[in-house]
Amino acid sequence: MKFALLFGGESYEHEISIVSAIALKKVLPNVSQYIFLDAEGGFWLIAPEHMRSDHFADATYRKGERLSLERGGFYRKKMLGSKRLEGFDVLINLVHGGQGEDGTLASLLEFFDIPFIGPRREASVVSCNKWLTKLYADGAGVDTVAYERLGIDDAREVKTPLPLIVKPLRLGSSIGVSVVREAGRLDYALDQAFEFDDEVLVEPFVEGIAEYNVAGCRIGDEWVIGRIEAPQKEEFLDFEQKYLDFGRTGEVAEADVDERLKEALIQAFKRVYGTLFDGALIRCDFFVHEGKILLNEINPIPGSLAHYLFDNYPDVLDRLAQNLPHKRAIRPTYAYIDKVQSAKGPKSR
Amino acid sequence: MKFALLFGGESYEHEISIVSAIALKKVLPNVSQYIFLDAEGGFWLIAPEHMRSDHFADATYRKGERLSLERGGFYRKKMLGSKRLEGFDVLINLVHGGQGEDGTLASLLEFFDIPFIGPRREASVVSCNKWLTKLYADGAGVDTVAYERLGIDDAREVKTPLPLIVKPLRLGSSIGVSVVREAGRLDYALDQAFEFDDEVLVEPFVEGIAEYNVAGCRIGDEWVIGRIEAPQKEEFLDFEQKYLDFGRTGEVAEADVDERLKEALIQAFKRVYGTLFDGALIRCDFFVHEGKILLNEINPIPGSLAHYLFDNYPDVLDRLAQNLPHKRAIRPTYAYIDKVQSAKGPKSR
Repeated sequence: MKFALLFGGESYEHEISIVSAIALKKVLPNVSQYIFLDAEGGFWLIAPEHMRSDHFADATYRKGERLSLERGGFYRKKMLGSKRLEGFDVLINLVHGGQGEDGTLASLLEFFDIPFIGPRREASVVSCNKWLTKLYADGAGVDTVAYERLGIDDAREVKTPLPLIVKPLRLGSSIGVSVVREAGRLDYALDQAFEFDDEVLVEPFVEGIAEYNVAGCRIGDEWVIGRIEAPQKEEFLDFEQKYLDFGRTGEVAEADVDERLKEALIQAFKRVYGTLFDGALIRCDFFVHEGKILLNEINPIPGSLAHYLFDNYPDVLDRLAQNLPHKRAIRPTYAYIDKVQSAKGPKSR
Repeated sequence: MKFALLFGGESYEHEISIVSAIALKKVLPNVSQYIFLDAEGGFWLIAPEHMRSDHFADATYRKGERLSLERGGFYRKKMLGSKRLEGFDVLINLVHGGQGEDGTLASLLEFFDIPFIGPRREASVVSCNKWLTKLYADGAGVDTVAYERLGIDDAREVKTPLPLIVKPLRLGSSIGVSVVREAGRLDYALDQAFEFDDEVLVEPFVEGIAEYNVAGCRIGDEWVIGRIEAPQKEEFLDFEQKYLDFGRTGEVAEADVDERLKEALIQAFKRVYGTLFDGALIRCDFFVHEGKILLNEINPIPGSLAHYLFDNYPDVLDRLAQNLPHKRAIRPTYAYIDKVQSAKGPKSR
């Protein structure tokens, strides 16, 4: 199985995606093509030796080869016409945030018939919109943190007790997120969040809550679950920490978690994954509070695809790539038009 | 305001979309470009005089001009390079079902920066997946019909009492839907539905339930709501009826509904529309049962865009086109990469 790695994208996690791709390159030997999506929606073929962050920060990539999307793949412009980019079987969507995680790229890849590892459109929408995540989790039988949803034009009547956390409804990164400990700070926190979305979520903020991350995927009938991680972090993962986090290449040991909790976390993960996330390796971040497991968020494209939590990581991706969900073939017919036309008689057709 | 009309698509409603486009052409004078999406994902420019059903059923359209999608619009292939298709300001997504209503085309149009009337990606996903519709309606404070969700591999333990209705989870048309009146028929109905989706919904079926359709949109701060319609139909709208329904060009009078119910239906419509459906003219189909209003389904792209329910229809679309939701501009920076690089010193960059 040969992979193409798609990274970059028009989002606040553009840089993080580059760092993540560079990290993944180091641990995944069978990536044969690197495709960079720039902030203007252009796709660029990147030579492996140019997979260095300055190549993008300096815009040197623009001296390289631009690709276009057509049915069946990416195409290289040639003197006469265009030629399909060969050399890979399955693409890995590593565009964190924005277009990568909101379902835009999933739609493009599906429309243009490019097989890929990553969340499909529905899964992307459900994990990108934090309100839909809660509704979905509820439907799937997994608890979430209590919340209020506030629109930009709504009265700012927040009932959640302090301390609380304010989050833009849709941004995946921690941009626009703030913890509020004093009532006088709430307005500013809301202003900040509304900079990034017309809707925000307000949730109670629990100091030092236990947090566990579970990553995995279903491959056919088999579940592959990574080592459970208890993220070491400050109040919440700020952007700089996240940046460093996405670039890591070492392995992570399993968190110190008893068997019963571990089993319960894995059960919750499987419920969230359901069939919606087929084709993706995702990470669910759970809180454990007063004995209850609460889904905090779904990362449908975790940083450097969470390789550091798995043994035989290249093998996991290989097998996942061989078990991607298939679109049902639909062949539109003209049965009704033909019927109506023939009722009208041949002349009128 | 000049419109392009996009129709066709890879779906069971391919034909219906053609009929719908032909009907809309008759009532909307300011459509200047017709773009057909064929079943293979090809976009074709159609001359107004070729907007007849046989032009598509016969594949005559293939003798015409093929378009490609690039940033900023559709492009016509020229001897040297390509040229942007001019002559329209806003595109109307009239691809019913499949790619049109599941968020695929919304994603493409957004990615390639083509302004359009139609549901955005999130709205499409929420209305296309009938389970998500129920979860969303619940979150928005609108009741729906009770249901069971069944996966293709689940035990067929259905608790819903007879008569019941079985529906594939995602198909917009009535294909794969059956009413079951005898227990012995359930298996066959499930088999039929699972032909089209790996998940199905089972709901109680209420004979002769009152049904009302409400169509409309929000334009800035103003709501535009069409005449309330009580659909005349059999048990449920079968495909042939729907076909005829989508082609109609006459007007429809308001249903005989008292003011209180009318107001309640409109309130329910507004709750469903929320901000999620900004940019779209949608139709919500409600049941009224034992005094309760229940959302049955959301049609994010109603047949010939439900023109027959509105006065001054071209004006409604004009104003909607002038009030489309805007994407927030995101300009990725390289702040963190630059920071890390400069910490490493200039040489290592």
